[in-house]
Amino acid sequence: MTKKNILVLQDLLGTNKQIAAEIRRELRRRGILCVNLLSSPGSGKTVLLEALADRLRGRNLMAVIEGDIETERDAERIRAKGVPAWQITTGGACHLEAKMVGRVLLSIPAEINFLFIENVGNLVCPAGFDLGESLRCVLLSSPEGDDKPKKYPQAFLTADVLILTKLDLVPYLPFDPDKAAAEALAINPWLKVFRVSALKGEGMEELAAFFAEALVREQAGRA
Amino acid sequence: MTKKNILVLQDLLGTNKQIAAEIRRELRRRGILCVNLLSSPGSGKTVLLEALADRLRGRNLMAVIEGDIETERDAERIRAKGVPAWQITTGGACHLEAKMVGRVLLSIPAEINFLFIENVGNLVCPAGFDLGESLRCVLLSSPEGDDKPKKYPQAFLTADVLILTKLDLVPYLPFDPDKAAAEALAINPWLKVFRVSALKGEGMEELAAFFAEALVREQAGRA
Repeated sequence: MTKKNILVLQDLLGTNKQIAAEIRRELRRRGILCVNLLSSPGSGKTVLLEALADRLRGRNLMAVIEGDIETERDAERIRAKGVPAWQITTGGACHLEAKMVGRVLLSIPAEINFLFIENVGNLVCPAGFDLGESLRCVLLSSPEGDDKPKKYPQAFLTADVLILTKLDLVPYLPFDPDKAAAEALAINPWLKVFRVSALKGEGMEELAAFFAEALVREQAGRA
Repeated sequence: MTKKNILVLQDLLGTNKQIAAEIRRELRRRGILCVNLLSSPGSGKTVLLEALADRLRGRNLMAVIEGDIETERDAERIRAKGVPAWQITTGGACHLEAKMVGRVLLSIPAEINFLFIENVGNLVCPAGFDLGESLRCVLLSSPEGDDKPKKYPQAFLTADVLILTKLDLVPYLPFDPDKAAAEALAINPWLKVFRVSALKGEGMEELAAFFAEALVREQAGRA
């Protein structure tokens, strides 16, 4: 990178950080827990949100921001669960930025408790952009392989939660969930690790309970 | 994006295009077919290269450039097959650029016929960077879902070949290979589509034969 490129990048990230901090303050004021979901394409972010919608229904109200390069598909799937969803199509860009989230913020109804942001499917670039979330979750699906954390360290280093997904496929794959978890924890020992199959429902009650507790902690922090 | 950022990006891409054109000329002069493999993390690029090494052995000589953010793991796996491999670790960058490939070029022995480049696992950013390849292949693995081409169109639009991978998992998944192929072909009707399970060996003979034919065409074009 040339000096000029580095300066432009620093400028972009500096502005993003500032906007993210404002979003975080505003969401905390409203008592909303914001969760940023990061992963490769097809690791099961949307299926996870569909499964969470079923489990949080009646307890708490959730809303979803869907980030995609093209199409409204994921937002439509979430709306079919009765959950309000906003689609941000980046039109080529490989990650969401805080200003894109900021534009949606005013549309979010007052009664919402959870705001889940499904980032663009990309295990690399989104890790560099704070969106104002209180929790960052990285998903790793069993078909991707247990060697991925060290190959894509920044997502695992900056996350609070690791969700190992599609574990119903483990019998058919060369994937060791313990090895994947150990490798991620070697990068970031503070990761809270969950193991789920969102499609089969395994591990989803524990994950929903974790988010419900995190919401209580978030709202207590506001007091 | 601000005007300044756009100018920097145009400058970067312009330089990349120039270097890529030089690399393409040099590889054609040497009679080497260069193949750039693009996909999400964990779509099976390295397993595909391992399976190709077994099938091309004795017929043609291959070499591999491995692009990763961190670790030498993939290059070590390829070398274990008796294939020369160079690891480029980008140290955070989300794609390979032509200049990184250019630095390796002088090390490639004269007797090589195939140069496979395994790009950084990322279905978004690498699509924007020509590496001087003659063939670009995009991999889509069955666990990623058949809805991915329209969500990540640029990789499918700029590729010559689509390889549907991990098809041995289809019985356990909501994935329709015909739908995935049709959606990709709707974006790019010139795509040549292959269906494989590199782990089980299914479809690999056809793919190896295709690359062998492409090499003959490439070398004929040189004459």
